[in-house]
Amino acid sequence: MKVFMQDMTWEEFKEKKENAVVILPTSSTEQHGPHLPLAVDSILSTGLAEMVAKKVGGIVAPTVNYGYKSAPLSGGGPLFPGTIDLNGNTLVCLVFDILEELVRDGVKKILVLNGHFENEAFLLEAIDLISRKYEDVVIIESSWWDQVSLEVREKVFDEVPFPGWALEHAAIAETSLTMFFKPELVQMSKLVEDKPVAELGYSIYPISKCEIPQSGLLATARTSSAEKGKLLAEDIASNYSKIVQANLK
Amino acid sequence: MKVFMQDMTWEEFKEKKENAVVILPTSSTEQHGPHLPLAVDSILSTGLAEMVAKKVGGIVAPTVNYGYKSAPLSGGGPLFPGTIDLNGNTLVCLVFDILEELVRDGVKKILVLNGHFENEAFLLEAIDLISRKYEDVVIIESSWWDQVSLEVREKVFDEVPFPGWALEHAAIAETSLTMFFKPELVQMSKLVEDKPVAELGYSIYPISKCEIPQSGLLATARTSSAEKGKLLAEDIASNYSKIVQANLK
Amino acid sequence: MKVFMQDMTWEEFKEKKENAVVILPTSSTEQHGPHLPLAVDSILSTGLAEMVAKKVGGIVAPTVNYGYKSAPLSGGGPLFPGTIDLNGNTLVCLVFDILEELVRDGVKKILVLNGHFENEAFLLEAIDLISRKYEDVVIIESSWWDQVSLEVREKVFDEVPFPGWALEHAAIAETSLTMFFKPELVQMSKLVEDKPVAELGYSIYPISKCEIPQSGLLATARTSSAEKGKLLAEDIASNYSKIVQANLK
Amino acid sequence: MKVFMQDMTWEEFKEKKENAVVILPTSSTEQHGPHLPLAVDSILSTGLAEMVAKKVGGIVAPTVNYGYKSAPLSGGGPLFPGTIDLNGNTLVCLVFDILEELVRDGVKKILVLNGHFENEAFLLEAIDLISRKYEDVVIIESSWWDQVSLEVREKVFDEVPFPGWALEHAAIAETSLTMFFKPELVQMSKLVEDKPVAELGYSIYPISKCEIPQSGLLATARTSSAEKGKLLAEDIASNYSKIVQANLK
Amino acid sequence: MKVFMQDMTWEEFKEKKENAVVILPTSSTEQHGPHLPLAVDSILSTGLAEMVAKKVGGIVAPTVNYGYKSAPLSGGGPLFPGTIDLNGNTLVCLVFDILEELVRDGVKKILVLNGHFENEAFLLEAIDLISRKYEDVVIIESSWWDQVSLEVREKVFDEVPFPGWALEHAAIAETSLTMFFKPELVQMSKLVEDKPVAELGYSIYPISKCEIPQSGLLATARTSSAEKGKLLAEDIASNYSKIVQANLK
Amino acid sequence: MKVFMQDMTWEEFKEKKENAVVILPTSSTEQHGPHLPLAVDSILSTGLAEMVAKKVGGIVAPTVNYGYKSAPLSGGGPLFPGTIDLNGNTLVCLVFDILEELVRDGVKKILVLNGHFENEAFLLEAIDLISRKYEDVVIIESSWWDQVSLEVREKVFDEVPFPGWALEHAAIAETSLTMFFKPELVQMSKLVEDKPVAELGYSIYPISKCEIPQSGLLATARTSSAEKGKLLAEDIASNYSKIVQANLK
Repeated sequence: MKVFMQDMTWEEFKEKKENAVVILPTSSTEQHGPHLPLAVDSILSTGLAEMVAKKVGGIVAPTVNYGYKSAPLSGGGPLFPGTIDLNGNTLVCLVFDILEELVRDGVKKILVLNGHFENEAFLLEAIDLISRKYEDVVIIESSWWDQVSLEVREKVFDEVPFPGWALEHAAIAETSLTMFFKPELVQMSKLVEDKPVAELGYSIYPISKCEIPQSGLLATARTSSAEKGKLLAEDIASNYSKIVQANLK
Repeated sequence: MKVFMQDMTWEEFKEKKENAVVILPTSSTEQHGPHLPLAVDSILSTGLAEMVAKKVGGIVAPTVNYGYKSAPLSGGGPLFPGTIDLNGNTLVCLVFDILEELVRDGVKKILVLNGHFENEAFLLEAIDLISRKYEDVVIIESSWWDQVSLEVREKVFDEVPFPGWALEHAAIAETSLTMFFKPELVQMSKLVEDKPVAELGYSIYPISKCEIPQSGLLATARTSSAEKGKLLAEDIASNYSKIVQANLK
Repeated sequence: MKVFMQDMTWEEFKEKKENAVVILPTSSTEQHGPHLPLAVDSILSTGLAEMVAKKVGGIVAPTVNYGYKSAPLSGGGPLFPGTIDLNGNTLVCLVFDILEELVRDGVKKILVLNGHFENEAFLLEAIDLISRKYEDVVIIESSWWDQVSLEVREKVFDEVPFPGWALEHAAIAETSLTMFFKPELVQMSKLVEDKPVAELGYSIYPISKCEIPQSGLLATARTSSAEKGKLLAEDIASNYSKIVQANLK
Repeated sequence: MKVFMQDMTWEEFKEKKENAVVILPTSSTEQHGPHLPLAVDSILSTGLAEMVAKKVGGIVAPTVNYGYKSAPLSGGGPLFPGTIDLNGNTLVCLVFDILEELVRDGVKKILVLNGHFENEAFLLEAIDLISRKYEDVVIIESSWWDQVSLEVREKVFDEVPFPGWALEHAAIAETSLTMFFKPELVQMSKLVEDKPVAELGYSIYPISKCEIPQSGLLATARTSSAEKGKLLAEDIASNYSKIVQANLK
Repeated sequence: MKVFMQDMTWEEFKEKKENAVVILPTSSTEQHGPHLPLAVDSILSTGLAEMVAKKVGGIVAPTVNYGYKSAPLSGGGPLFPGTIDLNGNTLVCLVFDILEELVRDGVKKILVLNGHFENEAFLLEAIDLISRKYEDVVIIESSWWDQVSLEVREKVFDEVPFPGWALEHAAIAETSLTMFFKPELVQMSKLVEDKPVAELGYSIYPISKCEIPQSGLLATARTSSAEKGKLLAEDIASNYSKIVQANLK
Repeated sequence: MKVFMQDMTWEEFKEKKENAVVILPTSSTEQHGPHLPLAVDSILSTGLAEMVAKKVGGIVAPTVNYGYKSAPLSGGGPLFPGTIDLNGNTLVCLVFDILEELVRDGVKKILVLNGHFENEAFLLEAIDLISRKYEDVVIIESSWWDQVSLEVREKVFDEVPFPGWALEHAAIAETSLTMFFKPELVQMSKLVEDKPVAELGYSIYPISKCEIPQSGLLATARTSSAEKGKLLAEDIASNYSKIVQANLK
């Protein structure tokens, strides 16, 4: 049974879409330290979307693989080569158009499954604009870290203290999840242990690299493992499924 | 000595602007429960900006008194009458233009002092666009709740547990600060004690009022006082001043 | 009885808005010579809006305190420090969003009371776009100088000839009105008497300061007085009220 | 000797543009009563531009033949069939792009010769944006009625009082000028004499036709003649030439 | 019987528009070699529109006389003086607004008759946006070269091989049609015979003039004649009329 | 040796980008008949980009997997479920932002490898806007079908006549290439043989499905094979490489 929209013919999509929730993974192309690939946000949101789709009989739309501007204290910022930053209005228009087309195709239930911290405000803006125009469509947005249960979070951060999700960039959760979904793209031998970043309480421009570790990691990735990744992925997918079942039935 | 730009003649502004930091308060027109006025975010950001300006010899620009869309779980959402929601791109353009004009007037140091939770991503977008165009201007953005020290926070939340800043809407901190800055606009007799809101972990559209208390308060305002307001205001103003002095000298 | 929306709680606004006209003052932050503050347009449009609201049982929305680009021959132009110029499209979006939100709150009668000469075309554009979208809302736009009766104008320009409203910038009418509304912000001792400006019959770019007096006054402010301000304010408020009563009942 | 850019080959334009002022006529497609064609604004701005170009050795660029929204009290408003109204931002972008391309072709001196009342604010916005980007280009904007000398105006309004230029729509000046430039398109037999319009002092939306004469004339066209048209045209062309010679040499 | 909208009074337009198709000619201001004027695209689309209007009882709206950016291998590109290039979004907005106004005037049948190769995608975008908003209006878009029948094409390209329509710039078809419509603007003595252009199979930026002949002709204009122009014009007009009659009756 | 940017760490990208051409595949999510998946354009542009990158030492950026609106006679149009159509301006902004970020990362040589017919005008608009802003970057755009040599085309269309690339939608070339790159997603058993589409010579709105075959194929896919796909892919990749080597060395 296919879950990825891109693998379906239009007839297969037509048949399945009638009652299915469509899941739109949103992500970014962004530095994730010396040990993880630029596609981490995309790998994670796509992988989790696939798991949720299988649980709820949903369809995964093609992943939005570019995202909003990386901020220094949640993604390392724009100065790392390979980080590609969309302007806010571009992301709003892109997500608006995709959602509108799904709606015009007759889709009535959508889950935007976000994997890039800085995207969120712009995703909500796009959804709000769609929601004002198409009042009979239910759209849910949620970033995957908001679906980690406290219990699992404590298991994952067993040796290392939890630094908050903003600073959990290229750190234990993202590393473990990538080890689970795409182990061949993780190079644990390149992992470095920089001094962790401290929250500033403000943003300062022009953006420089002084405030952030040279590696691009904002917290340690030590103690990451594919097992932790599996634990996280199953927890997240299960919690998303509950939301879908409660709200998008 | 004048601190409000709007009170100055152009000659007074011209003289003072040479070395001064300009502080731009940003806010919203938004419901704040049955006991607080719609202008709370404006009153607080303006009042705090005035205190900071006096400490650092700065200038307070006219307050941006409309802001980005209120979200259910940080401001009650759009369905309360009196909440006026700007589209994201409108706020970006507005703040961009104001900043650009300050820069064209020769201002080199700007603090955007935000008092409305939902504004932040759009303020940063506007600042980022300015910063790419005018590379020699230093701009800092910070919301006032990010300048509350842990020590003061514990004093303010002495009887009631701290619900997190998103849910601290029309609650103890905002009520106390309004009692400090504009006691004549606070009607404590109208205060109601709804069941507090729980974080959902997702956003759902179309937005309804089911998830939020009828009053518009997202947490309790009980134990608010002008004294707590003063304590908060002085703490915040002092912390902003330190940031200004460290970065915008 | 409160007239300012920002002073009301959402419940107070909800109750009052049902039948009330909402008045939106629009203004600018702009040089007004060496004797008047940058906020003149804001002070005047807000003060007049308050008077009208009291007469007609209306509500005054938060003042739009930034406006369209100052032109040399109606406001002195962009080269005076302290003049903050919004791009046309920004002002259109800002006013559009505010009006739309009022309409979505159930408001059916709106008066846009303008205090900045250069705003007018962009206010009308915003209103036209709203009016195409929400056909059952009546919106009136009028600048305060268009509500000065001939009789009062002759009393105000008793010694000095009337230069036309475009050139009446920081001159007798604006000075007198500011003396009436905010005498503490008027510094008559700093008043200078430049050679008055002549209309050119064309606009020329790049904008320079050659065509305009160094002071920023485009006509004389001599013979200004708080009494004349009162006379003007009462005349204007009375004429606005008649329009509201005739069209927005 | 060619004056119209559209009649030139690129080589002819290249040679002539080096020192020439380029004149851009701006106009509209708009009702002008039962006796004048929809193209009046275009005919007049183009005809006058040709006269000016011949006097100053200039080039006339293709006429912008659609313009900003007709207002009831200066053009009859949008409800007359045949009136085509551009949105403000569209006109700004269109004129911006044309000016930018002229500048990129090496043109350094431009006159925007406007023939449609409602265009003006949006033309100035486009010019201002160009002028900020290309600081070494001189651009002048002027509507033709601002170039009518008092002496000629008195000769033209010999029997009928001058109603002000806003209300002089499809009236004596426009009718006489069309009789001069395109007599074959004037049908004086269809001229009607409605009760003239009175200024309101405000704008009201939704726009209706109640305030304006059924014919679309805002003032009388009686006493119009080709001779008056010639008198006006020569006066206007002569005054434009003086401005060009004084500022764009 | 008038066919040009600009020549009609609003009453004449009102009467005729009820059942008529409105034809909107779109074009450009663009180099067309040393022998043809910059207005070729405008002359041709307007002349053909007039012929079609006469055949089908239609109305010709004012020609859109500026168009999208000239490409090197279909128009010579932006580096020829006199070529005026609109940005894509500007053209979309311009055509959108014109179409919307026609629709709001009650027009239900529109033919967009295009005479500039590079316009097409942006015209279709404007039409698509209108069509989504006004579902009961039928709009057809077609460039004139798509209406040349194979039989006529073979007669026109009797001695010279047909280079494809993209390269047929300022060449036999356009020269012959201009000789037919505006012989006084054709200077055959200036015709040059450059080496013809070859298709590249890609576009390269920054755009240079290396790939294109110095003259601006992309193919030869030899063997052009007014007779061929007449043959083409009648063929094209006849084919357009058939489309109108089949689809816009 | 990695070629996909998304598989690289930021350090790997940093090292490789110094001299490498970056290839940006652009595509769409669009119906491709009952036998091919919605991702055909994405599969082909990505697969070909990978082959080119390997030949020239380039880097493949994440594929733009949503594209401009499908047209009836080149992609079947918007009415097939699963076809997701971006607005023109959205695609321009998206590609502009991606290109700008690559340029800001220090990339100087870019190939936009397009796999969706309708994208092309909007890709060129984005590239033109970038090229005006960053003059020292060389950007080439080319759709893969423009790289098929005549010799190979004749081998591929050995039994079936070549219908032109616009109508070659979901037909022999696209089917064969998908059989080569992703055989598991091709369902030849579902292939239907509709009556082929005829070119109309015009576009008509509102868009209906009357003009196009029910299957979504615009021409036959009979005689497709993985061998033909290989032949095409190697020919295309080789021709792209020659262009890169000639222009982006």
